[in-house]
Amino acid sequence: MRIALGIEYDGTDFLGWQRLSHGASVQGCLEKALSFVAAEPIEVTCAGRTDAGVHGRCQVVHFDTDVQRDMRSWVLGTCSNLPTSVAVLWAQPVPDDFHARFAARSRRYRYTILNRGIRPALDARYVTWERLPLDATRMHTAAQALIGEHDFSAFRAVSCQAKHARRLIKTLQVRRDDAQVIVDIEANAFLHHMVRNIVGSLLVVGRGEQPEAWVAELLVGRNREVAGPTAAASGLTFVGPRYEKGWGLPDEVSE
Amino acid sequence: MRIALGIEYDGTDFLGWQRLSHGASVQGCLEKALSFVAAEPIEVTCAGRTDAGVHGRCQVVHFDTDVQRDMRSWVLGTCSNLPTSVAVLWAQPVPDDFHARFAARSRRYRYTILNRGIRPALDARYVTWERLPLDATRMHTAAQALIGEHDFSAFRAVSCQAKHARRLIKTLQVRRDDAQVIVDIEANAFLHHMVRNIVGSLLVVGRGEQPEAWVAELLVGRNREVAGPTAAASGLTFVGPRYEKGWGLPDEVSE
Repeated sequence: MRIALGIEYDGTDFLGWQRLSHGASVQGCLEKALSFVAAEPIEVTCAGRTDAGVHGRCQVVHFDTDVQRDMRSWVLGTCSNLPTSVAVLWAQPVPDDFHARFAARSRRYRYTILNRGIRPALDARYVTWERLPLDATRMHTAAQALIGEHDFSAFRAVSCQAKHARRLIKTLQVRRDDAQVIVDIEANAFLHHMVRNIVGSLLVVGRGEQPEAWVAELLVGRNREVAGPTAAASGLTFVGPRYEKGWGLPDEVSE
Repeated sequence: MRIALGIEYDGTDFLGWQRLSHGASVQGCLEKALSFVAAEPIEVTCAGRTDAGVHGRCQVVHFDTDVQRDMRSWVLGTCSNLPTSVAVLWAQPVPDDFHARFAARSRRYRYTILNRGIRPALDARYVTWERLPLDATRMHTAAQALIGEHDFSAFRAVSCQAKHARRLIKTLQVRRDDAQVIVDIEANAFLHHMVRNIVGSLLVVGRGEQPEAWVAELLVGRNREVAGPTAAASGLTFVGPRYEKGWGLPDEVSE
């Protein structure tokens, strides 16, 4: 049978989502804990890999097993075998044709910038610090040029392994909340470093170093080398994927 | 001259505010960094000591020195000599009769409870986990009995060194925000463990184990032994003190 799980994690102390031989990964910890509960090796497939230092609010994975456990055991048993920085939020049986990655219709990310003169002491794990004043309204206006289906080569990491760079951004909102500037972005899928590269260029506009129209120019130019630098990992949280309601998954990952 | 500082800190890895010989304290780190900047020993006096694991959003301290530094140096120079979990938000010259503790007209605390079946992975440093469902409206109603000036012996730690237990609670609000239940409390001053002991009893009411009127009964009974247990430190943040506007301190600590 196939089972889907919702996973929350603090990415600070991990080398990233993906299982690695040379250090701690979220996937590695999760598979180890699930394998302990199942008493057999379990491998998971996730909705979207995240880099070192990036957090997950509701990552979704699926795995296959013939072992019989009630859903409560998959949640609580696995949780009790995970480090405190990873938790299983829910477990649910899904049809064999559900696939955490391919069934996802969209993914949502949030990027949080602490915009003040002094570095963060509280919440330092969850924000990126920008010392210079940001104009969030300017950033929001500039970002609207990215809505829709485009070739996002200008915001794609050199290491990106995707076959092509076309992606569909559904929403991209930038707003200020006191000293924080919050970027919410939803797309059908993302290229490697795409959110952090978009935020890196929005920061340039927010500081007033480039006009609002610059982001649209970057998009059309498709040249990664002239866009802004990659924003730091710590401000980024994978809010989660969204699936068709028909799969019967919890509301937070359904649309 | 006398200088006031606003201090933000993540209390997770400290034994508490107060300087100690046997481990890391916020005061100890701050005095060490200030002494380095001043090139002479500096001792600080704070608005309110916090326990191990309790955070500070805007603690206020004052210190005296004859060393001449501009305020920018007290902020940035000290910050660069502090661990990443402590930051100086601002520095300001104050009259010699300003006293961080005695001039404070009130103190504000926030207590954040994550109320869901699964323990936190994200934000684990900043919340206390309550697995059983809480009725925040019940907690708020029960808490209103504590508003005003009372003898708070029922919510006072055995170790409390205050001369008497009379304190004036100005506001006490409990509200739900999704999976979080947030308690905001402002009083002229607090007894040792007073916020955590009040929250501990509110949790009992929130779980439905005691009626709303129980909190009022505890207050009148003045017996610590029959009240709820002390709630965990991790959910508690000292938002900061408030001073008369006349001292000219930043808005966040003025009223």
